[in-house]
Amino acid sequence: MAAQSSPYTPPVAEYGFLYREVFGGDVVARATSGALSADDAVDVLEAAGDFAAEVIAPLNAIGDAEGTVVVDGDARTAPGFKEAYAALVEAGWVAAEAPESAGGEGLPAVVQAGLGEIWNAANPALALCWMLTHGQIHALDAYAGDEVRETYLARLVEGSWTGTMNLTEPQAGTDLGAIRTTATPNGDGSWSITGQKIFITWGDHDVAENIVHLVLARTPDAPAGAKGLSLFVAPKFLVEPDGSLGARNAVTTVSVEHKLGIHGSPTCVLAYDGATGYLVGEVGGGLAGMFVMMNSARLGMGHQGIGLAERAYQQASAYATARLQGPVPGRPDGTAIAEHPDVRRLLLSMSSSISAMRALAVYVGDLFDRADDADNPQLAEFFVPILKGWASEEAVRIASDGIQVHGGMGFIEETGAAQHYRDARIIPIYEGTTAIQSNDLVGRKTVRNQGETARRMFDLARAAVATLAGSDEPVARRTAERLERAVAAADRATVAVVGFGASPRDAHAVSVDYLWLLALVAGGWMHALIVAATLAHDGRDADDERRLTEADFFGAHQLAHAHALAESVAAGEIG
Amino acid sequence: MAAQSSPYTPPVAEYGFLYREVFGGDVVARATSGALSADDAVDVLEAAGDFAAEVIAPLNAIGDAEGTVVVDGDARTAPGFKEAYAALVEAGWVAAEAPESAGGEGLPAVVQAGLGEIWNAANPALALCWMLTHGQIHALDAYAGDEVRETYLARLVEGSWTGTMNLTEPQAGTDLGAIRTTATPNGDGSWSITGQKIFITWGDHDVAENIVHLVLARTPDAPAGAKGLSLFVAPKFLVEPDGSLGARNAVTTVSVEHKLGIHGSPTCVLAYDGATGYLVGEVGGGLAGMFVMMNSARLGMGHQGIGLAERAYQQASAYATARLQGPVPGRPDGTAIAEHPDVRRLLLSMSSSISAMRALAVYVGDLFDRADDADNPQLAEFFVPILKGWASEEAVRIASDGIQVHGGMGFIEETGAAQHYRDARIIPIYEGTTAIQSNDLVGRKTVRNQGETARRMFDLARAAVATLAGSDEPVARRTAERLERAVAAADRATVAVVGFGASPRDAHAVSVDYLWLLALVAGGWMHALIVAATLAHDGRDADDERRLTEADFFGAHQLAHAHALAESVAAGEIG
Repeated sequence: MAAQSSPYTPPVAEYGFLYREVFGGDVVARATSGALSADDAVDVLEAAGDFAAEVIAPLNAIGDAEGTVVVDGDARTAPGFKEAYAALVEAGWVAAEAPESAGGEGLPAVVQAGLGEIWNAANPALALCWMLTHGQIHALDAYAGDEVRETYLARLVEGSWTGTMNLTEPQAGTDLGAIRTTATPNGDGSWSITGQKIFITWGDHDVAENIVHLVLARTPDAPAGAKGLSLFVAPKFLVEPDGSLGARNAVTTVSVEHKLGIHGSPTCVLAYDGATGYLVGEVGGGLAGMFVMMNSARLGMGHQGIGLAERAYQQASAYATARLQGPVPGRPDGTAIAEHPDVRRLLLSMSSSISAMRALAVYVGDLFDRADDADNPQLAEFFVPILKGWASEEAVRIASDGIQVHGGMGFIEETGAAQHYRDARIIPIYEGTTAIQSNDLVGRKTVRNQGETARRMFDLARAAVATLAGSDEPVARRTAERLERAVAAADRATVAVVGFGASPRDAHAVSVDYLWLLALVAGGWMHALIVAATLAHDGRDADDERRLTEADFFGAHQLAHAHALAESVAAGEIG
Repeated sequence: MAAQSSPYTPPVAEYGFLYREVFGGDVVARATSGALSADDAVDVLEAAGDFAAEVIAPLNAIGDAEGTVVVDGDARTAPGFKEAYAALVEAGWVAAEAPESAGGEGLPAVVQAGLGEIWNAANPALALCWMLTHGQIHALDAYAGDEVRETYLARLVEGSWTGTMNLTEPQAGTDLGAIRTTATPNGDGSWSITGQKIFITWGDHDVAENIVHLVLARTPDAPAGAKGLSLFVAPKFLVEPDGSLGARNAVTTVSVEHKLGIHGSPTCVLAYDGATGYLVGEVGGGLAGMFVMMNSARLGMGHQGIGLAERAYQQASAYATARLQGPVPGRPDGTAIAEHPDVRRLLLSMSSSISAMRALAVYVGDLFDRADDADNPQLAEFFVPILKGWASEEAVRIASDGIQVHGGMGFIEETGAAQHYRDARIIPIYEGTTAIQSNDLVGRKTVRNQGETARRMFDLARAAVATLAGSDEPVARRTAERLERAVAAADRATVAVVGFGASPRDAHAVSVDYLWLLALVAGGWMHALIVAATLAHDGRDADDERRLTEADFFGAHQLAHAHALAESVAAGEIG
């Protein structure tokens, strides 16, 4: 029996607040040189939110219950998915987020952050479909030659075809250098691809006319390891010169995996048996192209973590507000469990993290939108693993706490809380595990420049401390004091990590703790900015009070752990 | 498709070490006045472990895949469960743990801790069946009159009948005072019970001849709230004067829940429609009797958390040892992922907590076994919520990390790691949520005696610090230093909690943080005792080295958080 999908209320007003008040002016107008305003962006999110809540969100539990089935070698998605995707394309949502250079509308990254949360809150299994398409659009836009651009890019941008990312093989997960799939030239400009790829998200389905696989493969006489990999597009159906669909390509759907969660997303084993493909970029340059797609997907996974956490939170909050139980201290006549001190603590622990992560996602979008400013791209890239790692682990924790709020009912599948817990568990794994994000943060982004970017982040956080330190508002002063201590701990940890340069095992053994520490600092910093924006209001409404309470909670319960994490980092590898 | 159940290796040698070396002599001999020795106890665990690994563990994945079905109103358990339970009874394992006063063998609590881990590691869904029977045995042994003892107790002890605990109703979860099920006297000494009970674990099944329900119900004219509740036994099949089974009692299995995990355990909705029951204890004294069962179950849930965590750890460790991936720092030629720094960190984070929890379970057993010593019962009861809360939350975390170690394979159900993650999620909920454990710890066991028991625990931990502080072994010195700081933090937090006496909302808002802080101190203390026992060896073997590494890891990664938790506790309720 399928659970009833919980209702979903897109948090559009929160984005309005972030767009207008938190980051020093209208970030949307800044990103678009005034072509769009924050008000326009809020209108976009309102429209997307209505579509998400009405069309996509109700399919979340159905996708979980029905999953994907393979019939005569073709994957068939859950009832309603095909129609919902068609409506999404019809409404222009796929093109809206695609870059202008690729023929899309090019909504700025700050708006894409909001859309990413909304789609994934509504239905993470379905949202993966066009999240991957967008990643492929970025990769083709950056590296594809004219013919591939003309044949594939326009169809991907309009959404009539979807894109997949083919990296993993049974013996090659994190270690891409172990990939064995081969591509040999056919002599006519096309290539012949042979090998097996696993864990291919939306690798086969029935929601679009064609599927474009972006495949890492090894060319003849290529060097061993990752340097020998090249990138190819290989469609499910071959494309005739006039752009119409031709014969089925030699790509077979071997199976669809039976997974813990995101059942609505078809995770495929694909067999390439001399499938026709076309080179993207240079021979041997495959990783560079794939990493454009991967980086886009990592940012998208940060949004997915936030969205899934928000949906789990909304469901838990609704249950706790409706569920009456007996007397507790301060509420002798009995009350909704949302007023019980520990349930209130759990709900605050969820919402205070979500608010911080959402703000960080907008901030990172703002950095990408202002990539012309000298230091912003480096800082933006610095935050990608932090956002992905933090939001994915927090999604798991928050979905778990969502079950806890429901008590015994949370363990019953019909309640729907359990689906979020199952769905969330993949986010810390795919598009690079939390350890991979952490090693990226520590290795390429911290040790390599002696902690320079990290210290830039700390300076920005300290600037936020300075704006709050003398405030009349106790929450502001406490937030400043806690953030200052956390930044000091992060500074110490950065010195330790940079010092591990000659001892990379130590650096890799503590990289997850380091990422977590920087995520807490980022979160405290975001709360400091939110508090400052709140204090600028004349008078306070309920949202202002909630924001102060969330900042205070985050400080007392999360920032407090910064020192401990710095101690763990300093310890290096144990044993 | 069912996953292959992972192999299970019972950690009997660890119990031997704990029984003989860690707690000041042979705890088994001490508990039994020399009737049994640690060597005997190890033999018992060896035999149980063989049975668990060979008979019960292979059914774990089958129970998950097959669950329980209801056929013609009767619940049927998964294939193999009935035969495994019959073999367990035949081997005498149910009677082995039942107290001598009830006709059992009365194995000491230190041995029951080991058995509890082993049964639950092998198959937590199945182990719940006789864990609940034992809880009922304790309740009947304490409160039942002669007739109920004669009719029911012997059959429960031999295992031919099983016991259940009937508290929850749709409107009455944590708040037992809201129970509405009624019991009215029939005039012949029996009572007529009417109402609906939900979440009844092993409430109906086919593995034993009869099922004895222990039911909380409200008698006519009883006062409102919990004081109006009385306790009854109501069998599935009525019992004739000669002890044979008679007619079916008026208890109907309405449904079996569709749960996130422990599918092999039938969780039932039971409808009582004038069912015949028999009073246990005094009218109005129901809670006292039920709490004997509940306390036994809470201790059992601590063991379940440890067992489930150990099984998840063994599976992750086996995968990481077998799975080869590419080069990492310090291992340029590639290696099993168990040698990758972050995977090694994850595995150590699992094993170092399990070792500490296992030691605490034996220590608490030792306190119960030596209940004649004046202060021990109070200290033992103090640790029950800590062990239950800590082990249940750690089981969830460790099962989640177990998935992470598997990477993408962990998300595929056939791998089996996901089952542990789904199964574990109920432990922090049933037999009292983590908040209920924490409120018990803070309210009844800390505030009520002004922190006296807590400080007794801290004094014992400080004594362990003293034995290590001057050691030549750096791990010993670090462990002493970290534990000393953690105890100081716990001391401060206790002052704060006791100070919340007049502000119980504050106390309840931070009670989970307080429990966690005390669990970390208990864990650090257990590691200190283990280090001391290890250093007493002549030379060091691999187990000794592992124990030192686990202590060092627990100190650097877990004890480090004690200060932060004390800060969270001191903050009280936020907002």
